[in-house]
Amino acid sequence: MPIKALTFDVFGTVVDWRSSIAREARAILGPKGHALDWPAFADRWRGLYQPAMEKVRSGERPFAILDDLHRENLLVLLNEHRIEALSTEEVDELNRAWRRLDPWPDVLDGLTRLKQRFILATLSNANIALLVNMAKRAGLPWDVILGAEVARAYKPAPEAYDRTAAALQCQPGECLMVAAHPADLRAAAGRGFRTAYVHRPAEFGPAHADRPWPADAFDFAVASFTELADRLDA
Amino acid sequence: MPIKALTFDVFGTVVDWRSSIAREARAILGPKGHALDWPAFADRWRGLYQPAMEKVRSGERPFAILDDLHRENLLVLLNEHRIEALSTEEVDELNRAWRRLDPWPDVLDGLTRLKQRFILATLSNANIALLVNMAKRAGLPWDVILGAEVARAYKPAPEAYDRTAAALQCQPGECLMVAAHPADLRAAAGRGFRTAYVHRPAEFGPAHADRPWPADAFDFAVASFTELADRLDA
Repeated sequence: MPIKALTFDVFGTVVDWRSSIAREARAILGPKGHALDWPAFADRWRGLYQPAMEKVRSGERPFAILDDLHRENLLVLLNEHRIEALSTEEVDELNRAWRRLDPWPDVLDGLTRLKQRFILATLSNANIALLVNMAKRAGLPWDVILGAEVARAYKPAPEAYDRTAAALQCQPGECLMVAAHPADLRAAAGRGFRTAYVHRPAEFGPAHADRPWPADAFDFAVASFTELADRLDA
Repeated sequence: MPIKALTFDVFGTVVDWRSSIAREARAILGPKGHALDWPAFADRWRGLYQPAMEKVRSGERPFAILDDLHRENLLVLLNEHRIEALSTEEVDELNRAWRRLDPWPDVLDGLTRLKQRFILATLSNANIALLVNMAKRAGLPWDVILGAEVARAYKPAPEAYDRTAAALQCQPGECLMVAAHPADLRAAAGRGFRTAYVHRPAEFGPAHADRPWPADAFDFAVASFTELADRLDA
């Protein structure tokens, strides 16, 4: 069964959230006199992400888009740091930092090649507006923006994968899930997707740069999107 | 309030469905010995489109994607022409003719220019897979595929416009609806969208080529996407 569509995790796989969020937070909060450990600020914000989605996945709260979860988590974070003088507009602007994440160096070349042969779809937990604005700024050439907001389900819930394949009118085995996170790939494989692991050793910062490659037998395991393009003859 | 997103009707506005469907039907049915009036075949297929969607809009049936409505209508059409020897695969292949529609000559130049300044979104009654595959074949540079399948509502239902603006996180007045059909534009304006009428005199064939421009006071009224790009300084 040939691969028709590549479905991409975005945060960490396509874009470097940690250094970009650190940069954006510093740019907005630094001039206001705050001197924080900016990478740690990014890590903490990201750390609140899974627990917030888990409340949706477990049914504890109805579906809410990631922008809203990010904003709730940002208020927690600002409170932890006793940062109280921000206006609503300033909080919104900081929350939109997630739209200003830079792609890893190999991404634009790799996607441009892969786009010639395959449908390129996001399969991200981010919402549509976040992903569209990120793509416009960074030049990411998606064919279609799919994921949690369209599926009304957060990965790794099965519905996130099932409904994305259905929207593309692809069999799960015609979809290749591309992600830097083994848990995402295992969940996709459980729904019949093929899997491509991309090693992103810098995702969690220098202290984690030597973390090992996973032992899973994914269909592909590559160090970059250009290597994936090589492997897929794109 | 500046325009941020252009939302496009697709059938008739972006692509020439009539001559493309006529060509595709002839290519598939002609070799099987059928000699029909192919443009009339296209007109009849298209003519069954609004009544099928009306059953969804009225609540007579639950939401179904346009591919499914098109296929049901195709079976009606084949029955009318007493074409009975097609396999399921051949019917599916003919139904996918809607993915092989050619854009009007000004479209690629116009969209390429407009994409530099604005988010380009579909706001079509077509489903996601149809629009993605059409875009891949024709080179349509959409930033995001929105419309009936994401909104779970067919134009001109208000929800189709409201939910598209919401997905983009745009105010309705930040969205410019681009369409060749006054009824679509009037419905969009009713939800607060700005409006751009594009005159497509060839949409319904030579017999209708001299139909007049509408008298409505739309925000823009242009003869091509390149003229729209001129008007929007794109």
